[in-house]
Amino acid sequence: MNKKFSFDIFNTDKAARRGRVTTAHGTFETPTFMATATGATVKAMKPDDVRATGAELAICNTYHLMLRPTAERVAALGGLHKFMDWAGPIVTDSGGFQVMSLSKLRTLNENGVTFRSHLDGSAYELTPERSMQIQHLLDSNITMCFDECTPHPATPEQAAQSMRMSMRWAERCKKAFQPREGYALFGINQGSIYPALRLESAAALTALDLDGYGIGGLAVGEGQEAMFTALGAVVPALKPEKPRYLMGVGRPDDIVGAVLRGVDMFDCVMPTRSGRTGQAFTRRGTVNIRNARHCDDARPLDDQCSCVACTRYGRAYLHHLFRGEEMLGPILLTTHNMQYYQDLMRDLRQAIEQGALDSYAASFHDTIARGDIEARL
Amino acid sequence: MNKKFSFDIFNTDKAARRGRVTTAHGTFETPTFMATATGATVKAMKPDDVRATGAELAICNTYHLMLRPTAERVAALGGLHKFMDWAGPIVTDSGGFQVMSLSKLRTLNENGVTFRSHLDGSAYELTPERSMQIQHLLDSNITMCFDECTPHPATPEQAAQSMRMSMRWAERCKKAFQPREGYALFGINQGSIYPALRLESAAALTALDLDGYGIGGLAVGEGQEAMFTALGAVVPALKPEKPRYLMGVGRPDDIVGAVLRGVDMFDCVMPTRSGRTGQAFTRRGTVNIRNARHCDDARPLDDQCSCVACTRYGRAYLHHLFRGEEMLGPILLTTHNMQYYQDLMRDLRQAIEQGALDSYAASFHDTIARGDIEARL
Repeated sequence: MNKKFSFDIFNTDKAARRGRVTTAHGTFETPTFMATATGATVKAMKPDDVRATGAELAICNTYHLMLRPTAERVAALGGLHKFMDWAGPIVTDSGGFQVMSLSKLRTLNENGVTFRSHLDGSAYELTPERSMQIQHLLDSNITMCFDECTPHPATPEQAAQSMRMSMRWAERCKKAFQPREGYALFGINQGSIYPALRLESAAALTALDLDGYGIGGLAVGEGQEAMFTALGAVVPALKPEKPRYLMGVGRPDDIVGAVLRGVDMFDCVMPTRSGRTGQAFTRRGTVNIRNARHCDDARPLDDQCSCVACTRYGRAYLHHLFRGEEMLGPILLTTHNMQYYQDLMRDLRQAIEQGALDSYAASFHDTIARGDIEARL
Repeated sequence: MNKKFSFDIFNTDKAARRGRVTTAHGTFETPTFMATATGATVKAMKPDDVRATGAELAICNTYHLMLRPTAERVAALGGLHKFMDWAGPIVTDSGGFQVMSLSKLRTLNENGVTFRSHLDGSAYELTPERSMQIQHLLDSNITMCFDECTPHPATPEQAAQSMRMSMRWAERCKKAFQPREGYALFGINQGSIYPALRLESAAALTALDLDGYGIGGLAVGEGQEAMFTALGAVVPALKPEKPRYLMGVGRPDDIVGAVLRGVDMFDCVMPTRSGRTGQAFTRRGTVNIRNARHCDDARPLDDQCSCVACTRYGRAYLHHLFRGEEMLGPILLTTHNMQYYQDLMRDLRQAIEQGALDSYAASFHDTIARGDIEARL
């Protein structure tokens, strides 16, 4: 049970790494893509179906869960693993990002943030210490430091001020975090699009000697090129023996590019959120299943995919479900998108093992560039 | 594959029967409760999960499917079984009931009904002949005669006129129906709450020598006692060697009472519709999981139930899902309710086999009368 938290790297291919993280609740292979379970549920999927796609790690959200059902209630009910029936490892986001994007009447100062709930307007305070306490109560295997996700765009001065406060908060997080065998605390690198600030942040986190690195404040509107530039600057400055987690990223091509640049962990709402609105990821790009061209098409969404939506149904049926606003539509498309992302990660891991990541990435881009299968007349 | 349509009765217990129906797409044990798949999907459930509850028979709807995706499209895509991934037997309702309850600008005459779609206002005609054609195109194993579901309340004169037209339509249905090995046509008994009319209808249907009897126009507001009275009058007049299907019924206690009175087949939206709104059926009655008393309750919804909602989760988690309007809430509660209904049917079948239906029914009512488990303080 209570295994030591560890990260083993088996293979590398240039900057990319193929590894395994061990926690008190089992292992996950890297590079990994987490199942987004913000409110202690992967939207539209049962945990067994999530696991069946190959997902090993789930991410829940401190902000959402502190408001409802509350961390104290989850703890009384035995922690998140039991509450949501997820036996595997769990990461929790610290709440910083969601306080900024969702809550009302925020006041941020050196101590932390006071805000009003977006659900009922009641007042809360979130500090580095309280965030650590909440994540402990939730029984998260990987606790993220409480930080400010620097908004984009930010001037170098704004970015520096914000990043330095996050680094002071990271120190407070380390003091407040209660270490347990098989549990980890990750710092979060900030510094906006400025390489010098990213490096200053990396040095501060490295000095704190935490268990892994989050890379935050990217994919917030700066564009893929700027994100890759920032990654190219900061990743070489991180201790290679610790896992690197690019937070909130991203589209399939973002992930391929970030793995090439040495990132090990990802999370994003894209597969689940898109699945609910009828957008599917396929090996030949994205497909909007609501489009009328699918209404007579008996062919699967993606004939390379092993998911239930692709092996049991034609596009015509999926189209029919979305036209009729049937819940099975979001269920099937979310399952498909999760399977697509997990297949992508499996293929990336395999390519790294074979030292063939560059050629895998080239073929990935070529296949997407072909576009969706042509409509039948 | 193309088995002859047949109904074998293995045991009886007073009026109740324990049997098996064989169709071209497999068998189902009776008494049976169908999985409601109105628009070619059981709302919020994947077919594998529906089958796992014990459901063997699905019911789809002529009215809904003729509008979207259209019967011709379903036929071109290989029929309903393939379209919706349901390999087992399928019943289709004839559309009569939904034309009356959902469509706009209806005109009903001896020929049939003209109406406008509730989806886009376009004009359609539904006649006995067209209903047979649509159900054939859908590849339904059990086609239901096109009838008028007599509204409640109706005077004896209105009920007689409506029933007699339905009986003339049943004759036209029989002429238009294309017999195939393993496919059946059921008539529908009407006559409102008037025993004499019910018996007249039963005689008309028996003269047509169809494959089974629907019993329609009940559970439309007349109350359980009037429904049982009507059943008590009509069932003895039906040929015992043919299956009896009480359409659109019902609550668990309706089903127990109707099985006692010799009914073999049931369908109702209650388990699926209630599941979506947070109402659960349990052995100790109905539970509204949205109620605040469940928020700290780690106990299962129904500790006798084998479904995923009851074996993996506490009430507190289900409550949390509904509070947060998470799709997993309806998914789990629909699954639970389907399991509850299938368990009920299994227990009824077993009780008939053992000649113990009366004592089963008594214990069923006693357990419900105990009420839900008491809240923990």
